[in-house]
Amino acid sequence: MKQFPAYLRTYASFSDAELQQICVSFEAFHVTAGTILLHEGEICRHLYFVDEGLLHFYFLRDGVEVTRYFTIAPYLFTSQRSFNLRQPANESIQALEDCRLWRLSAEKAEALFSLPAWNIFARKILQEVHFFTENIYTDLQTQTAEARYQQMLATQSDLLLRIPQKVLASFLGIAPQSLSRIRKKLACSPAKLT
Amino acid sequence: MKQFPAYLRTYASFSDAELQQICVSFEAFHVTAGTILLHEGEICRHLYFVDEGLLHFYFLRDGVEVTRYFTIAPYLFTSQRSFNLRQPANESIQALEDCRLWRLSAEKAEALFSLPAWNIFARKILQEVHFFTENIYTDLQTQTAEARYQQMLATQSDLLLRIPQKVLASFLGIAPQSLSRIRKKLACSPAKLT
Repeated sequence: MKQFPAYLRTYASFSDAELQQICVSFEAFHVTAGTILLHEGEICRHLYFVDEGLLHFYFLRDGVEVTRYFTIAPYLFTSQRSFNLRQPANESIQALEDCRLWRLSAEKAEALFSLPAWNIFARKILQEVHFFTENIYTDLQTQTAEARYQQMLATQSDLLLRIPQKVLASFLGIAPQSLSRIRKKLACSPAKLT
Repeated sequence: MKQFPAYLRTYASFSDAELQQICVSFEAFHVTAGTILLHEGEICRHLYFVDEGLLHFYFLRDGVEVTRYFTIAPYLFTSQRSFNLRQPANESIQALEDCRLWRLSAEKAEALFSLPAWNIFARKILQEVHFFTENIYTDLQTQTAEARYQQMLATQSDLLLRIPQKVLASFLGIAPQSLSRIRKKLACSPAKLT
């Protein structure tokens, strides 16, 4: 849990005692690449912190996987609607790499709201996750799949190397073959040769 | 502000004294249809409650308006990123109808976080707004403009009558002429005649 205290302090001012109380509420575990942490339709009973690794959120539509988000360490995540409203999840969460994780039960998460700094932290995380979602929504409203891929190439090229082609294509809303064509086209473009 | 106390109590348990403290922090005003409450690029300095009326959030892309959301009374709203981070807004907010509104300054909003029930309320609203955004994003990922229009027709037909055609088309990501064609096609479809 080496990154967690520093991560928390980027959002709110926690005392050492508060950090201690928070950290002991979480339990550590590891998963290997491919593990599904949450299946669509199940109730998500934990809030997670990914200390190392990468995950994706996806759902099935007409039997096809559609990727909604990626979560890259270090970050906190859960299936929000399911965790907060105790409803069946409308998404699955899968590790795309071996992950070092920490998890907090819903009961322990509720208890942490007695700490004012945890309230501030929770609000800021919710706002940040909303901003990320809004950005993806705006990109989808205004850009083609090729432009979105080019943007990821410019700003998140390291991440692109870690995501399987099939998963990336489902995030961009295109077939894996179309993504291959875009990649070949961009690899052959003059901009790449300069 | 007739709906506001009842609205607040659907999210958290407020005492009468807390409700009183919250309500006196807001100030009432009216705007006529077409009024722009916030211009893209300005800093949003208020949290708003719309007691009566309808608004839309939009941004300009290559000189064209793109509608992001609608806010229908009774509901709380602001340009979240701008209001919380004191950054220039990445969207404009415009009244689509004459609106009865209440607004709260950023300073007074901050002061209300001393009330535990306001913290719970704020967290639940943030979660709900995130769910709405996620739903729109998912619809955009998985449905055509025509299917999204049909879904609105089935679930929000009253709202459709209140939104100008140009604004609805920009929300669906199509030209107003394409929306007219979809409307004519659906009006002539057998399903409409049964």
